[in-house]
Amino acid sequence: MKITIIGSGNAATVLAKLCVQQGHSIVQIISRNEEKGKNLAQNFNAQYIPLNGTVNKNIEIVLVAITDSVFPKALDGLNFGSIPVFHTGGAVSMNVLRNTTTNYGVLYPLQSLSAEVEEIPTIPFLIEANSENSFKILNEFANTLSNNVTKVLEFKRLRLHAAAAIANNFTNYLYTCAKTYCDNEELDFNLLKPLILETANRIQNNDPEKVQTGPAKRQDVYTLGKHLQLFSEYPKLRTLYTRMTESIMHG
Amino acid sequence: MKITIIGSGNAATVLAKLCVQQGHSIVQIISRNEEKGKNLAQNFNAQYIPLNGTVNKNIEIVLVAITDSVFPKALDGLNFGSIPVFHTGGAVSMNVLRNTTTNYGVLYPLQSLSAEVEEIPTIPFLIEANSENSFKILNEFANTLSNNVTKVLEFKRLRLHAAAAIANNFTNYLYTCAKTYCDNEELDFNLLKPLILETANRIQNNDPEKVQTGPAKRQDVYTLGKHLQLFSEYPKLRTLYTRMTESIMHG
Repeated sequence: MKITIIGSGNAATVLAKLCVQQGHSIVQIISRNEEKGKNLAQNFNAQYIPLNGTVNKNIEIVLVAITDSVFPKALDGLNFGSIPVFHTGGAVSMNVLRNTTTNYGVLYPLQSLSAEVEEIPTIPFLIEANSENSFKILNEFANTLSNNVTKVLEFKRLRLHAAAAIANNFTNYLYTCAKTYCDNEELDFNLLKPLILETANRIQNNDPEKVQTGPAKRQDVYTLGKHLQLFSEYPKLRTLYTRMTESIMHG
Repeated sequence: MKITIIGSGNAATVLAKLCVQQGHSIVQIISRNEEKGKNLAQNFNAQYIPLNGTVNKNIEIVLVAITDSVFPKALDGLNFGSIPVFHTGGAVSMNVLRNTTTNYGVLYPLQSLSAEVEEIPTIPFLIEANSENSFKILNEFANTLSNNVTKVLEFKRLRLHAAAAIANNFTNYLYTCAKTYCDNEELDFNLLKPLILETANRIQNNDPEKVQTGPAKRQDVYTLGKHLQLFSEYPKLRTLYTRMTESIMHG
């Protein structure tokens, strides 16, 4: 398929890469960020178009991969006629696209897409469209990109998006806290990496509640006290530790 | 090596399995919990001994794999002469063993050991001993169990133990929160599993701070507001979400 991508951030970059890997071609990148947009376009032999530029309509699909908060303003003045336009926003209604085309929908990658990461992970796509016709196009297209495609209506997608923030953004933040502490205390953060991987691997086939370990779960106030003492010079870490421990102990 | 294990919980179970896999034999299980102790002993053709029972001293190594908080009381009255005794407690000084033997130390598995999990993960062992002689025995033994063995003195081990609670126990708790929410809202938690795995995989080769994504990182108050609205009937989740988001936004 000949594709236009609107956006030049993490999601746009990873999806462009995935599309090309699966035999599609990126025709143009439309972005308000000239530097990132031009870079991305160059990587895929595509044309860079600024937001108010002249858009090439000799394409089959438009992917809108922009930050949730800039919808719908970023799409002002864009009209693709009947060319299908799909956005990737987890927390955005598909209706923000209704002035841009007659065929629209959502192709939400339920995955953390970081342009920094070389290998593209398995991406579950949650899809939804405004008509049977656009759903058919979207479904076929999504299945070229992933084996994990599910039709999910907006109210469920929103909730999965929120649950994903907990399971991904917050855990990554905890890794950051642990690494910062290790760096400050001259400890080797690499020693924690097998543990981090195991915890994520373990819940692939186990209920996380059933495999919870640690001093908070055991109500081991002796060890909890030792840990809090170690964090006495790290007030923010101490607060985080106390709050998470209380949640684990008292549900 | 002929091994006695004191304990019958998660760590004792997984270490017993690992020892046998590597060609050692478990001679006896000493445990205050008769049911779990007998079960574990039976699984490894070992003898079960209650805490005040008569201990077989025809062994080469004693592993004390008990909860940190029950040290040193659980070892009262046990004396192994010069047989090396190593405990697995991350937050416990090796000196709690000094009345049980002349050769002692710590063999701390920096890993989450859950008896529920079938496959034993990579285990980094942090080791420390009271003399050159006991260190030599411990080091050789630890290297039969893992390729990842590091000498780490108590003050650093304690700190790694605390960092591990953040990187493992807290993240697993977040998975539990996400799953409970999914179950309540009739969402498929399986859809989040590739994301969870990717987040843990990603930091194996990337600084977690540099690959942080999500609305909190982007200061996207629009999406954060939507999420909080979704959690309005889940006051505990709402509190957790607010606290973690504030930490990510304001460091």
